[in-house]
Amino acid sequence: MDPRVDRLQRIAATRPHVIALAGALPARELIPRQELARALAEVTRDGEDALQYGWPEGSASLRAWIANRLCARGVRITADRVIVTAGAQQALAITASALGGGTVTVGDATYPGALDAFARAGLRAVERGGAIGYVMPGVSNPHGIAISSHGDTLIADEAYAELRFDGRTPRPLVGDDVWHIGTISKTIAPGLRVGWLVAPAAAHAAAVAAKQAMDLQSASLSQAALARLLATFDLDAHLARVRACYAARAAALAEALARHAPALRFREPEGGLSLWAELDDDGDELALLGAALREGVMVDPGSAFRPRPGGGLALRISFSNALPRELEEGARRIARALSSAVVRAGSASRTRHCRDC
Amino acid sequence: MDPRVDRLQRIAATRPHVIALAGALPARELIPRQELARALAEVTRDGEDALQYGWPEGSASLRAWIANRLCARGVRITADRVIVTAGAQQALAITASALGGGTVTVGDATYPGALDAFARAGLRAVERGGAIGYVMPGVSNPHGIAISSHGDTLIADEAYAELRFDGRTPRPLVGDDVWHIGTISKTIAPGLRVGWLVAPAAAHAAAVAAKQAMDLQSASLSQAALARLLATFDLDAHLARVRACYAARAAALAEALARHAPALRFREPEGGLSLWAELDDDGDELALLGAALREGVMVDPGSAFRPRPGGGLALRISFSNALPRELEEGARRIARALSSAVVRAGSASRTRHCRDC
Repeated sequence: MDPRVDRLQRIAATRPHVIALAGALPARELIPRQELARALAEVTRDGEDALQYGWPEGSASLRAWIANRLCARGVRITADRVIVTAGAQQALAITASALGGGTVTVGDATYPGALDAFARAGLRAVERGGAIGYVMPGVSNPHGIAISSHGDTLIADEAYAELRFDGRTPRPLVGDDVWHIGTISKTIAPGLRVGWLVAPAAAHAAAVAAKQAMDLQSASLSQAALARLLATFDLDAHLARVRACYAARAAALAEALARHAPALRFREPEGGLSLWAELDDDGDELALLGAALREGVMVDPGSAFRPRPGGGLALRISFSNALPRELEEGARRIARALSSAVVRAGSASRTRHCRDC
Repeated sequence: MDPRVDRLQRIAATRPHVIALAGALPARELIPRQELARALAEVTRDGEDALQYGWPEGSASLRAWIANRLCARGVRITADRVIVTAGAQQALAITASALGGGTVTVGDATYPGALDAFARAGLRAVERGGAIGYVMPGVSNPHGIAISSHGDTLIADEAYAELRFDGRTPRPLVGDDVWHIGTISKTIAPGLRVGWLVAPAAAHAAAVAAKQAMDLQSASLSQAALARLLATFDLDAHLARVRACYAARAAALAEALARHAPALRFREPEGGLSLWAELDDDGDELALLGAALREGVMVDPGSAFRPRPGGGLALRISFSNALPRELEEGARRIARALSSAVVRAGSASRTRHCRDC
């Protein structure tokens, strides 16, 4: 993350009047807070396991739930193949460190955390043609639509797979050449930091060892509370509510942007938490974010999602944690920011053009 | 960890009659379970922050508490220098990846998680003479006594610093060439996975970026609950109880070992959770652990703590999570395992010697 962008986003977070459309946070109303509170009370009452050390691969009951969930989605997998991680991000970091090198196809724009994990492990992210494919089955981040990718080896990041608005959840990608990654951060609660990795069988032991070297194990408390919650929680009914809410918010944002900011090119999201919008102008992104902050709205800069510099001015706009009236007003503020910052950038580039000729 | 040792330890964990003197687990009775349950109930009732995403460096209130605690121990440090990590292990992993190479002095035996983190980041662990010193102020693991080390750069792992039985907590090591690491895993509860890192000021931003690439942030839930607990919890009174309990258990173990297993050479611990015992025999460690399991006791193999192969047969015996009568019986079982396995190993090595001559 550009430290100047980080600074703007931190300023935005301190100003209550700023409409926050950055960060792809799940809706605060959709986090099953009461149910989690009850599960926490139970696991801390029942013994000290939730507060003591556990095994690096994670708790047996949570791994069994994850394996069952994947089986219900159409694959055969046993709990001993599942490694509980600190969110999908740690699963990506383990995967990247295990792969340790090579080129990975990520498309024109992808999840910045993946780009970061790849770069630190010596994997080169390329738009196309890499030996490894980084795919997000069902819903891609930041595009909010299904995008396919190829490679001899696949990193299947299913963070959003269960969040297609049409409920058509893809069959999980697992296999000898697949690193399958999942998380409950987008569907239940990110603050628990619980995700998982199903590594290729031959790489399982090395992946557990890498996990252990990173942080010994994921939080026993989060794992115990989640396993307890999931023993009785109707996750499918919850997901139906979640999808309906996000579908309505996505539609509200798309409609408002089309009305207020016609310069933005975007496809209406098929799922997930965000919309990816591009501009036909390659103006100054930082100036645009600064203008957005002045107008009282914050979004994510497109450059953070690019595997390489350039690629055109773009924004990721998250609709997930904003009410419809905030989305309407947010779109209006984005439009005002665009018309001040991008027009100015446009005139600057015209000036340059005149000097060139 | 040798997978054969891992297997033995996992078998031991499934057998209730096995006395567990491995793993340096804090005493189950000393985890402030009720107080944490209350804090968890409060933070989940008061809003969604405990379950939502947070900043990579950690929650402001917890970082403020950590900074205040370090200040109370005699240094000047502000909250903006503190990075909340997933336990001391992640702080070590961040430190190792930031240092990225070189030689690190660890002494004859040290914490296996540090050896693992160093090796993965390309740092070479040496017994003495490295440019970087890995030190555990106050109480060293596995020795249980104060050990000093030197280097141009220091990694100060203060996991046990507040657990000297005499209560003489050293002044925290922080500074331009010091990576200061702390944790509440040994003093409050390991299952929260909360530790911290104070990197050299010039390396702070890079350390936060490394943390973010590893897992975005530590669990909001653990951080919020801990910050809430610490707002009212009398940690110093708690630590006084913890030290008194561990001091009594250390004395009970040392006395029982001296009586039952006189072949073990050890210094009585000055603090911490474990005792380091050496043998004048370089017999088969795996056979010894197997014999221990058959006798109904489990300890940690000395080889896991060595920076290089060899160094003599040794055991780390944790007294922290066992009652005095379990320590007495555990020492008896260790003695029986020694007399069966080590005598046998002794004869085997004598046989080899005869063949050699």
